[in-house]
Amino acid sequence: MSLNLTQKIIKKHLIHGTMEPGREIGLGIDQTLTQDATGTMAYLQWEAIGLPRVKTELSVSYVDHNTLQMGFKNPDDHKYLRSVAAKYGIVFSPAGTGICHQLHLENFAVPGKTLIGSDSHTPTAGGLGSLAMGAGGLSVALAMAGEPYVLNMPRVVGVRLEGALTGHAGAKDVILYILKKLSVKGGTGRVMEYYGPGIRDLSVPERATITNMGAELGATTSIFPADEITEKFLRIMGREQDFAELGPDPGAHYDEQLVIDLSSIEPMAARPHMPDLGVRVAELDGLKVDQVAIGSCTNSSYSDLKISAQILKGRKISPDTDLLISPGSKQVLKMLTTESLLGDILDSGGRLLECACGPCIGMGGSPVSKGVSARTFNRNFEGRSGTQDAGVYLVSPVTAAHCAINGRFTDPAGWGDPLPRPGFPDKVPSIRDLFVFPDDTRRVDIYRGPNIVPLPQFDPLPEKLDLPIVMKCGDNISTDHILPGGAEITALRSNIPAISEYIFSRIDQEFLARIKKTSQGIVLGGENYGQGSSREHAALAPRYLGIRIVLVKSFARIHRANLVNFGILPLTLARASDYDILEQDQFLSLDTTSLKPGQNSFIHTRSGQAIEVGNDLTEAELAIINAGGLLNHVKNKAR
Amino acid sequence: MSLNLTQKIIKKHLIHGTMEPGREIGLGIDQTLTQDATGTMAYLQWEAIGLPRVKTELSVSYVDHNTLQMGFKNPDDHKYLRSVAAKYGIVFSPAGTGICHQLHLENFAVPGKTLIGSDSHTPTAGGLGSLAMGAGGLSVALAMAGEPYVLNMPRVVGVRLEGALTGHAGAKDVILYILKKLSVKGGTGRVMEYYGPGIRDLSVPERATITNMGAELGATTSIFPADEITEKFLRIMGREQDFAELGPDPGAHYDEQLVIDLSSIEPMAARPHMPDLGVRVAELDGLKVDQVAIGSCTNSSYSDLKISAQILKGRKISPDTDLLISPGSKQVLKMLTTESLLGDILDSGGRLLECACGPCIGMGGSPVSKGVSARTFNRNFEGRSGTQDAGVYLVSPVTAAHCAINGRFTDPAGWGDPLPRPGFPDKVPSIRDLFVFPDDTRRVDIYRGPNIVPLPQFDPLPEKLDLPIVMKCGDNISTDHILPGGAEITALRSNIPAISEYIFSRIDQEFLARIKKTSQGIVLGGENYGQGSSREHAALAPRYLGIRIVLVKSFARIHRANLVNFGILPLTLARASDYDILEQDQFLSLDTTSLKPGQNSFIHTRSGQAIEVGNDLTEAELAIINAGGLLNHVKNKAR
Repeated sequence: MSLNLTQKIIKKHLIHGTMEPGREIGLGIDQTLTQDATGTMAYLQWEAIGLPRVKTELSVSYVDHNTLQMGFKNPDDHKYLRSVAAKYGIVFSPAGTGICHQLHLENFAVPGKTLIGSDSHTPTAGGLGSLAMGAGGLSVALAMAGEPYVLNMPRVVGVRLEGALTGHAGAKDVILYILKKLSVKGGTGRVMEYYGPGIRDLSVPERATITNMGAELGATTSIFPADEITEKFLRIMGREQDFAELGPDPGAHYDEQLVIDLSSIEPMAARPHMPDLGVRVAELDGLKVDQVAIGSCTNSSYSDLKISAQILKGRKISPDTDLLISPGSKQVLKMLTTESLLGDILDSGGRLLECACGPCIGMGGSPVSKGVSARTFNRNFEGRSGTQDAGVYLVSPVTAAHCAINGRFTDPAGWGDPLPRPGFPDKVPSIRDLFVFPDDTRRVDIYRGPNIVPLPQFDPLPEKLDLPIVMKCGDNISTDHILPGGAEITALRSNIPAISEYIFSRIDQEFLARIKKTSQGIVLGGENYGQGSSREHAALAPRYLGIRIVLVKSFARIHRANLVNFGILPLTLARASDYDILEQDQFLSLDTTSLKPGQNSFIHTRSGQAIEVGNDLTEAELAIINAGGLLNHVKNKAR
Repeated sequence: MSLNLTQKIIKKHLIHGTMEPGREIGLGIDQTLTQDATGTMAYLQWEAIGLPRVKTELSVSYVDHNTLQMGFKNPDDHKYLRSVAAKYGIVFSPAGTGICHQLHLENFAVPGKTLIGSDSHTPTAGGLGSLAMGAGGLSVALAMAGEPYVLNMPRVVGVRLEGALTGHAGAKDVILYILKKLSVKGGTGRVMEYYGPGIRDLSVPERATITNMGAELGATTSIFPADEITEKFLRIMGREQDFAELGPDPGAHYDEQLVIDLSSIEPMAARPHMPDLGVRVAELDGLKVDQVAIGSCTNSSYSDLKISAQILKGRKISPDTDLLISPGSKQVLKMLTTESLLGDILDSGGRLLECACGPCIGMGGSPVSKGVSARTFNRNFEGRSGTQDAGVYLVSPVTAAHCAINGRFTDPAGWGDPLPRPGFPDKVPSIRDLFVFPDDTRRVDIYRGPNIVPLPQFDPLPEKLDLPIVMKCGDNISTDHILPGGAEITALRSNIPAISEYIFSRIDQEFLARIKKTSQGIVLGGENYGQGSSREHAALAPRYLGIRIVLVKSFARIHRANLVNFGILPLTLARASDYDILEQDQFLSLDTTSLKPGQNSFIHTRSGQAIEVGNDLTEAELAIINAGGLLNHVKNKAR
């Protein structure tokens, strides 16, 4: 049977399961990556597993998020990450070396390899044919332990590219166009696999821009074949040995099809506050722009910054606009300096920031109040820029540079002759020796600053539970309600005891005092409990505080999985109306040995009333909860 | 009579007073500068004066402090500053262009001119013969209005430099040596005037390093003559027209004398937590260094970064150390790129930050917990780095680079042959067109984000006051007790209504509710009220809340002056024991027309008891308070 590229890579890495869309599969993982914001928890989980060395072919720990270092927490985290990397055989990329996805593309990604990363834009590496997926920190920790990565077999969408880009259009405009067409849910449960004659018009960094923002489609990942363009890229990067030609079988089947004519693409911008709100830049003609930012894992490659510099050369940015530049890597920055492109940027009035994620994650560079910011980034959610009432427009580097010069959006028809999209020089400077490769001869002590606290040990599920309802909450409780975000709380990611102090703090300031008094309890909730972001801490920290059961009318899918992973029983009320008869502080008891996968059982009030509860747990999930969570389960298996 | 250089410049600018050490003088001010952190309040005060255009020869508004922009407040401030500059004839230097003092030296400072700046390191410009002093924001606002800058005539210390620097020693080591010798109080009430054969060994940036850190001596300012070295510097900067040869008269008298033999200077480091805790670097041999930072207004010139790059070239920084580089200006950064020096820094593992103050003011770049940080900066106060328990060592760029490579302090004897101290190339790139020069043809509206609130109008002192004691506090209340620091509160500098909510918040959480209820009142305090930092807001915000009298046993000098400037009556208890009979909430009445400069008067309780109170106000000060503060007073005079 002829397979598409995605299926071929999955087939080669399949550990268990059936390659049928929607069915669970387990994939062997060749490479992992982490960034510092998610990495501390991933490595605390890795440490809790207790293995002496990672089992992957390659694991890299990048520092690119919390690089501003306001106070000791971030540098302490970085030092912890550095020591963990040295001890367990992980490559370490220090702060300032660059953005994880740009660096991975330049230095480590390999066609046909599987990669999971604790960052949602890990699919960037799909630009050169790696099957690269974003995942939770626990999944990355387990992959480093040699466990398969478990997901549902995706549907594969064949995206046939035809023609070639024209005018001022670039790769960013292609993905903004696709996002507008498919919406931010359009890729859910799918892999976007690019093929067709049009791919030959796109360089590897351009392909990577497209696969990077596949994350905004909700796609499992996006991937391009590895062809002669990939080979050339790897050769220029000094990695010809990593090349292997790789593409779909002739006549390969796709679950769905999409055809894009590249020659029809015009410069696009995604309006606030969603990446799929695309319009043609021409339609924004005249809109004043207060800030322009060029960089991020989407558009910080050499070619992105080169074309920006070429447009800025000899001109000045508008006095009413601010221009921020964050190169994707030191390699990119070095290339900008050797070709005098950096001088062109500085002379125009552009500001050079560190090679890091920077303003894309609201790590500085916030726009003015109610400001319009044109950014080459991938997300424009409300408030993400750090300025709640600012409006962020996602654009290409070409559009960004023109916005900076004009101080407003203008119709590309007036931009003059388009510059040729820059290729690479034949040789590029290597920054490979800036990575810290593990050295087995050196004894390493793990550094733990006061904000790095080992993961708490969780006990197995007791046979008898008799617990008070410590929290009764309503419908649509989000993970933000359970554990708020924000810089102050997020800095405590590596410190479960500290971060747990914020559980439910936005909705009930008395909760913490109650759970500390009882030291165990049940959360009672309504419909769609745990919706929103996938943050693991919204399960991990409640478990730390003593929550053993979450009993609700219905669950949001990802949070339910996180509850299982950290050993909390996710139960549903068989009769929604029972919600009304249960009250806060009321005790409920459960014989956990009575629980059977997928079958109803009973929980009892102290007055003897039996409340019927359901579960949709698999046998495996029940075993995980009984063990006290997935980490215990894996450790037990390893014994 | 033969005058020294300081006296010559003062004589030329004297508006009133006698040039006798300790006596009050008023100086005409040619130039002003502000930075963004102090600038917002300075310009709000300027706006309150109500003039159409600055009266100085040159005023420059730099943005170099709050360049990280976490949230809307900083970019809003910058936009406000930009619009004020355009409207009132002020040169604006956008964020990222560089550090105010480095930029002013390169572009604007002129020998023989007077300069005041709302930043304590304004004396940097003394490196080329400008009489440059740090001052409060209100003083800068008044200078822009053409008012004289009032200070006490300083004693002039003649610092005779002999010999020439040898080995690895540099200008930074000279000033660290002088600081160790004289202490952080050694310059109080003094101008440090450098002369003698040794000055010919020092370039203008090296001289500026020395005058810059004269601020740490507590000196009014420091100054070098303008000689052929100055002329060469100005010529290279494209400013030969700004040169005027300038030095002390032959046989000039100095109030005090100090002789330094440059050839005896060795590499120095100031230990935590004070700039005068100097030791020879050799004595620190072996001390582990967790972080190295090169930059700040003290050591971010081309020659500082060039010699650092030359030492780093072809080497790697220690894996246990982090190296942060902040160039002082885009001119410096451009010179680093054209000479491939930036590549040497990046290849060594150094991190390139924006051209700004950065880590020197704790604006990012904090060290790890309990870390040792070797910095080319000027202050190493406890906690200033953002990490409370870190220890900062102040060093030269040469020492810093060696610390980065070795990961520890090492004896300079082992550093090999010293590199020649770098001079300038014959021509340097100009960045003059990155400044925004005022354009009188353009109508400007002042931009005010929600955090920019016009200065409140204060009414004149009423003839009868009948006020409750809203706060009774003890001895040694500092301005930090009155108004705490920290990033959150400091960001409200431009918003008096908002910042006033924090008055006394650290010592009495009920104060705000009380004063809001009474809307006027008296603060009763003990000895040394208002000690510590000179922040104007500790007087301004209480006045906004309705404080009209501060009645204490004794005052700290600067805070007392600030109270006068903002229209609060500073009174002292004639009998300290009366402190004990007065209680919070008690009402006191005062006939303000009974107040005579320097004479005691009486304040009455409601039960009729007369409390004798003193004042040490001059006639002029009393007039200022009667007018409702200095701004009103100046406005009244202008009418």
